[in-house]
Amino acid sequence: MSAPAADKAYDVIVIGVGPIGETVAERTRAAGLSVAAVEHELVGGVCSYWACIPSKAMLRPVVAAADARRVNGARQAVTGPVDPQGVFARRDYWADDWKDDGQVDYLKSIGADLIRGHGRLAGPCRVAVETPDGQTITLSARHAVAVCTGSRSNFPPLPGLDEARPWTNREATSSRDVPGRLAIVGGGGVGVEMATAWNALGSKVTLLAGGHGLLPRMEPFVGEMMARAYAEAGIDVRMGATATSLRRPGGTGPVTLTMKDGSELEADEVLFATGRKPLTDDIGLETVGLEPGSWLEVDDSCAVKAVGERWLYALGDVNRHALLTHQGKYQARIAGAVIAARAAGQPVDTTPWGPHAVTADHWAVPQVFFSDPQAGAVGLTAEQAKKAGRRVRVVDVDMGEKVSGAGLYADGYTGRARMVVDEDGGCLIGVTMIGPGVEELIHSATVAVAGQVPVDRLWHVVPCFPSISEVWLRLLEAYRG
Amino acid sequence: MSAPAADKAYDVIVIGVGPIGETVAERTRAAGLSVAAVEHELVGGVCSYWACIPSKAMLRPVVAAADARRVNGARQAVTGPVDPQGVFARRDYWADDWKDDGQVDYLKSIGADLIRGHGRLAGPCRVAVETPDGQTITLSARHAVAVCTGSRSNFPPLPGLDEARPWTNREATSSRDVPGRLAIVGGGGVGVEMATAWNALGSKVTLLAGGHGLLPRMEPFVGEMMARAYAEAGIDVRMGATATSLRRPGGTGPVTLTMKDGSELEADEVLFATGRKPLTDDIGLETVGLEPGSWLEVDDSCAVKAVGERWLYALGDVNRHALLTHQGKYQARIAGAVIAARAAGQPVDTTPWGPHAVTADHWAVPQVFFSDPQAGAVGLTAEQAKKAGRRVRVVDVDMGEKVSGAGLYADGYTGRARMVVDEDGGCLIGVTMIGPGVEELIHSATVAVAGQVPVDRLWHVVPCFPSISEVWLRLLEAYRG
Repeated sequence: MSAPAADKAYDVIVIGVGPIGETVAERTRAAGLSVAAVEHELVGGVCSYWACIPSKAMLRPVVAAADARRVNGARQAVTGPVDPQGVFARRDYWADDWKDDGQVDYLKSIGADLIRGHGRLAGPCRVAVETPDGQTITLSARHAVAVCTGSRSNFPPLPGLDEARPWTNREATSSRDVPGRLAIVGGGGVGVEMATAWNALGSKVTLLAGGHGLLPRMEPFVGEMMARAYAEAGIDVRMGATATSLRRPGGTGPVTLTMKDGSELEADEVLFATGRKPLTDDIGLETVGLEPGSWLEVDDSCAVKAVGERWLYALGDVNRHALLTHQGKYQARIAGAVIAARAAGQPVDTTPWGPHAVTADHWAVPQVFFSDPQAGAVGLTAEQAKKAGRRVRVVDVDMGEKVSGAGLYADGYTGRARMVVDEDGGCLIGVTMIGPGVEELIHSATVAVAGQVPVDRLWHVVPCFPSISEVWLRLLEAYRG
Repeated sequence: MSAPAADKAYDVIVIGVGPIGETVAERTRAAGLSVAAVEHELVGGVCSYWACIPSKAMLRPVVAAADARRVNGARQAVTGPVDPQGVFARRDYWADDWKDDGQVDYLKSIGADLIRGHGRLAGPCRVAVETPDGQTITLSARHAVAVCTGSRSNFPPLPGLDEARPWTNREATSSRDVPGRLAIVGGGGVGVEMATAWNALGSKVTLLAGGHGLLPRMEPFVGEMMARAYAEAGIDVRMGATATSLRRPGGTGPVTLTMKDGSELEADEVLFATGRKPLTDDIGLETVGLEPGSWLEVDDSCAVKAVGERWLYALGDVNRHALLTHQGKYQARIAGAVIAARAAGQPVDTTPWGPHAVTADHWAVPQVFFSDPQAGAVGLTAEQAKKAGRRVRVVDVDMGEKVSGAGLYADGYTGRARMVVDEDGGCLIGVTMIGPGVEELIHSATVAVAGQVPVDRLWHVVPCFPSISEVWLRLLEAYRG
């Protein structure tokens, strides 16, 4: 592919340098390709400064203290509440005080050129970067342009929304003040995690779960159990409830939400966690025949389907496979190998689970919510599996009742696990768990599902006694009848 | 197999009813066989009353409090020490106050006959039970006798040992007093776990690691890192040190240990954790041509090799495959299926990883130490793999440095992981981890090793960000170079 005249030509141009952009830059640099990395905000992206990293930094002390309180002998040692200033100091440390020097150094260390500015496609294989000083640099890509611009909050069109100055994940993960009363609109991952965090930090949290309940993409028991646990923790969970308008005169002071049933809710801040939309509205998609603001549909090599010659890749949130940092990084590892292979004229092998296909995106996407209780899953839910035409058997285990290791982990343990077995394939296609301490246990399920380990072989996979992992034995016993 | 005249005939006789005996009783009962379960102490065994269960019940509060102290924001909430009375209450609860009613009910619920007394083999397929009232009941087995008697502490032959009235795992997991000074002889699993527990409960602990260091069967870095962590926690770890004699006049007051170098160590109690020997010295092995006190070598169906006709099975510690409750339960599940198949005249399939072979005993034994830090492993160490003639590649990852999820779990995280890849098979044959929070992460390694998931497929097994599980990504990146 010959590069048209431009200020500078690179093998690969990456637009948007969060963890996904960094990963594809690193992979293609490792293959000897030259890389330009274009970023208009902080290098490191939303994940590093306003999502995964600061939220986990805030949630971990909350969960650690809660875990200690749940155990006789440790409970007596925990006399005070979580300390917000300590939590914020930790969070600020992990967010690098919202400075990206470390990430810039990383890009330098791998030999990628950082170009600060707003990158837009300018026709095939070309990217125009509007720099902070108002200049435009035009770049051309010999082999690939990777769009890794991610997503942003998607607000419902409510009267008074702008005036209400709502929090998004950004404010919820960077605020240095604890609102007295925090209303959270939306029961998905952000809403649920931030409810745990701010409740423990001292806010009176009202969680408006809307019509779909909590974590509606997971097995139904997850949202139900989480709602019960949240209520016990003092969070006001309102199932079915959502706001229809907001009022905050002058954008200061308390915000008043008018609810569907006509009632009002007053809060000191309101967090909208009502979904995401792709950051593709201003990246020049129209110059290559694509719709600005659209999700970018990709093939299994992560090349954008609608664009010929496979020079445009879309990685991470923008391709809508799974709006998860780890899944985007996986795509970036695979796509990095694809770009390197195509650049070298080597064959690309997109057979399932091969080196150049993001097969796990379809069958083995894991997710953990670092809330209290924690919840995690990989693969398909029972309903998704049935909709996909699979002949499945579903087995559930009450972890508090059946797993000694769970009860030993936390007094009065409450948790549940589900395993969805593909009866034709003889392998697991989905696992879900909710309960304290399941955070690192999900990966065992991911190995089983993505590894397609036959259920007969899992009978030989011995869990340590007495750990929570023994839930696996109970699941398999239930399956074998 | 015809039963000779006896008081009563059963399909299966189980001698020793800990978790392993219970499991083989349950499995064979589920297959419709009649079962006599013979136990001379508490039904539930050492694991339930003087090992796994009470030790984990004691360790969990210790680790939960330590984990909270390691995190800014939670640290401020933990103002006091672990509360020994709370810990003991929890431990007593989990040990059912050393009463076995619950376990007796369990046996009843599965329809097994409990026979209280000391069981001894009395020739092939016969067991004589000496009951508490001095009677002898003779039982005959139509299909199988399963020896599940476990093991007991193995003491070195030291002068003054009896007079010193040393603690074993029994006293260490059931004491209601916290010794001011506790000397622990032995750096294996019991010594290491009890050092964590009693140090946190307030004892001044001296851990005499002997010539092999801490946890000598694991990768060498585990013992080294644990020794450093223990020293920081205030445990006096003495590498190479061991006692040559003991003095405790009258068996009361302080105990004085004379060390190899001539120095003396005074303590209020001394725990000997110097290995185990099989509880086979008084079970009538001589009546079937076996050596009393010996380990019982078994084939892959867990039948004792030296005995013909496959009626005698040895499960758990006595067969010396792995002195771990979970591995013994695995053997009991497999042997239960074997006994049921043989009783029904069905074929027995002992091909590796088949339904009737304890293949995991050879290749995928997992183990977790619930100490602080935790350590766990599955499969072979690098050295074991090389000795077994495997062509391996070994990769290590510094978890504190390379895994964000680890640092987010604990401030200043210190931990390490190692993966041993069989370069000919393309699969993992060993994984080892040490660090806070690895307890439930080991199972992901067990799935990978026992599941023989190819290393190329593991590249598609995506760990959640930012969890400790991402150590897997770092290991695989290091492996792929």
